[in-house]
Amino acid sequence: MPVERPEFIMAPGPTEVPPEVLQAQLELPYHRGPRFGAVIQRCVDALQRILFTKSDVLLFTGSGSLGMESAIVNLFSPGDRILVCDTGNFGERFVKIAKIYGIVPVVIEYEWGKNAKAKDVEKALADDPTLRAVLVQHSETSTGIVNDVEAIGRVVKDKPQLFVVDGISGVGAAPLRLDEWGIDVLIGGSQKALMTPPGIAFVTVSDAAWKANEAATCPRFYADWETAKTSLALDPPETPYTPAVTIFRAFAKALEMVEQEGIEAAWTRHAILGKATREGVKALGLDVQTEEADRACVLTAVVAPDGIDGAKISKHVREKHGIIFAPGQGRLKGKIFRIGHCGYYAPRDILMGLVALEASLQSLGYPVKEGAATGAAANVFRENGLA
Amino acid sequence: MPVERPEFIMAPGPTEVPPEVLQAQLELPYHRGPRFGAVIQRCVDALQRILFTKSDVLLFTGSGSLGMESAIVNLFSPGDRILVCDTGNFGERFVKIAKIYGIVPVVIEYEWGKNAKAKDVEKALADDPTLRAVLVQHSETSTGIVNDVEAIGRVVKDKPQLFVVDGISGVGAAPLRLDEWGIDVLIGGSQKALMTPPGIAFVTVSDAAWKANEAATCPRFYADWETAKTSLALDPPETPYTPAVTIFRAFAKALEMVEQEGIEAAWTRHAILGKATREGVKALGLDVQTEEADRACVLTAVVAPDGIDGAKISKHVREKHGIIFAPGQGRLKGKIFRIGHCGYYAPRDILMGLVALEASLQSLGYPVKEGAATGAAANVFRENGLA
Repeated sequence: MPVERPEFIMAPGPTEVPPEVLQAQLELPYHRGPRFGAVIQRCVDALQRILFTKSDVLLFTGSGSLGMESAIVNLFSPGDRILVCDTGNFGERFVKIAKIYGIVPVVIEYEWGKNAKAKDVEKALADDPTLRAVLVQHSETSTGIVNDVEAIGRVVKDKPQLFVVDGISGVGAAPLRLDEWGIDVLIGGSQKALMTPPGIAFVTVSDAAWKANEAATCPRFYADWETAKTSLALDPPETPYTPAVTIFRAFAKALEMVEQEGIEAAWTRHAILGKATREGVKALGLDVQTEEADRACVLTAVVAPDGIDGAKISKHVREKHGIIFAPGQGRLKGKIFRIGHCGYYAPRDILMGLVALEASLQSLGYPVKEGAATGAAANVFRENGLA
Repeated sequence: MPVERPEFIMAPGPTEVPPEVLQAQLELPYHRGPRFGAVIQRCVDALQRILFTKSDVLLFTGSGSLGMESAIVNLFSPGDRILVCDTGNFGERFVKIAKIYGIVPVVIEYEWGKNAKAKDVEKALADDPTLRAVLVQHSETSTGIVNDVEAIGRVVKDKPQLFVVDGISGVGAAPLRLDEWGIDVLIGGSQKALMTPPGIAFVTVSDAAWKANEAATCPRFYADWETAKTSLALDPPETPYTPAVTIFRAFAKALEMVEQEGIEAAWTRHAILGKATREGVKALGLDVQTEEADRACVLTAVVAPDGIDGAKISKHVREKHGIIFAPGQGRLKGKIFRIGHCGYYAPRDILMGLVALEASLQSLGYPVKEGAATGAAANVFRENGLA
């Protein structure tokens, strides 16, 4: 590149962050006392509102994977059986963590790119009433699918099982109404659609989940929920161990911006960004390997054309244009690349990403009709008064 | 206060941070790739140099307590017996974590304010050869003592036990030479003398510690060392789960500044800051409840005068002067207050803190000769050409 500029992230997390949010990191309040207590409280209150929940919200310094581990160790005991809807890399992560702690995952395995089905969950619960919980990804970051958590929630709702949802990449992008949909535990992170630098994981804990927590014997210290709840109940609220105070400040600022846009408006924006990206990619003759594609508002997984490695495409776009698409993960390595559009993105970012993709595919020997992708995307934006 | 200004932290962590370090958080590089890989590598290389070690250095997004838990779960198995030198709140934390995981802590309990003694460790190891490790705090943040880790290391060195040191508040302030002193595992954090916002824990792992790690059966996922090592060995280096990238950037910048000063010069500066604070406090007729006080360069624990609650003093100084001293922890709650001086502190900060203390004690009814504390501190600085 002629000028050295920071790379522009169009990966499904970490994502671009508003300058105001980055700048919120410039002050370092002491982690015990009213100033920082107010920051924690703002995060908790805003999360309860945008998640439509009255559940407790606990915040941990760490990545989303720490949040996933915290859910397993705080809810279950060795020998417990849990149902995992495995729709990709992060479904597999639930399975992996469960096994580490001696918990028995009963897995419904889906082909990557397919959605988890409520009827499969219903059957599995009927077949095995000893199951303690249903675990599913809201948005599966490795494939781009967004599961119909509402439909699965309807199946779990009147049953004894807990409903645990990994919302790390979906929160803030795809619709999610915790209490209405019967979600007992939602795991989230700061660094995706919530437009904050990585460093904070959060979990919501319903009354039923607290009851399970009392009985859960998996060992835990740093990620222990009850310890976190006790500190949060102090006046002013605290965390048990020194938190990433600068990122908490950034998170409070970003959540304020999310609420300024309005969470439902953010969902609509993401739906439009997703559709525009999808239509753009399809106009290049490329496949979007995503079932129920109209739900895929977090990222767009694109099947690489025959003979071109998906990682080569994302590498080329990164090197020539300084734009970061994510390569495929796990069993989709080389087969796809992923365009992220969750968080602080506007139509112009999608158009820029698609132009860079057109130019790169052309350079890599895949025939492209210039303007095809951007034209199709612009059409979607135009239909919505955004172009 | 007439003008609303950020509070000035004189607590033993988190500490004040240089503006350059805060500003390093303003860029958010993607967490996989050469730009961020270089940031990780700079942190690892600098830590190896300032710790005088060839051991692996692993970095985790989380607090120092996560680092402590990671040491326990990565080194031991349920039923293992370990020797813990308990000199305060953080010694107790080792005991607590060990018990959670079914590990048997054999505890040498010291009165708070006293140092761990090498001869006690020697005796304990002779009494019980089944012990797997010796765990001790380098600096015990709750009391201000700095243990003679070098002397304890000499005792452990030729024995089969691992030597595990919590250096969270001591690293960068008090002398520490890992390989020379036979330290197998050192646990550290970004937020104390290393002048960085909180959010990163690190551990060093010697060959002997890696060997113990292979055999350790405690369950672990997020804090697993081998997973971290595998990602770090990639080119460019990575972390297994999304790291707090902005804090990593800040940490790399702060470590650069530590090396610009020179780690040994930093140790000398901290020794002078500690002595000046101690002499200042003593000139007010107050006790410093710290054995081997000349080692206490991280923080100064001050015994509150008869009839005045220590927390009342720190509260007064905070409310009237916007300066944060830490109150007592655990069994010293109310009895002491703690003046932190680890990290980005100069003589003028100590003088300011002592003036605020003089004025506050006066307001609280404790008779103070004005200028006594600051005069005594200035004398120490003068002797060192710093006043």
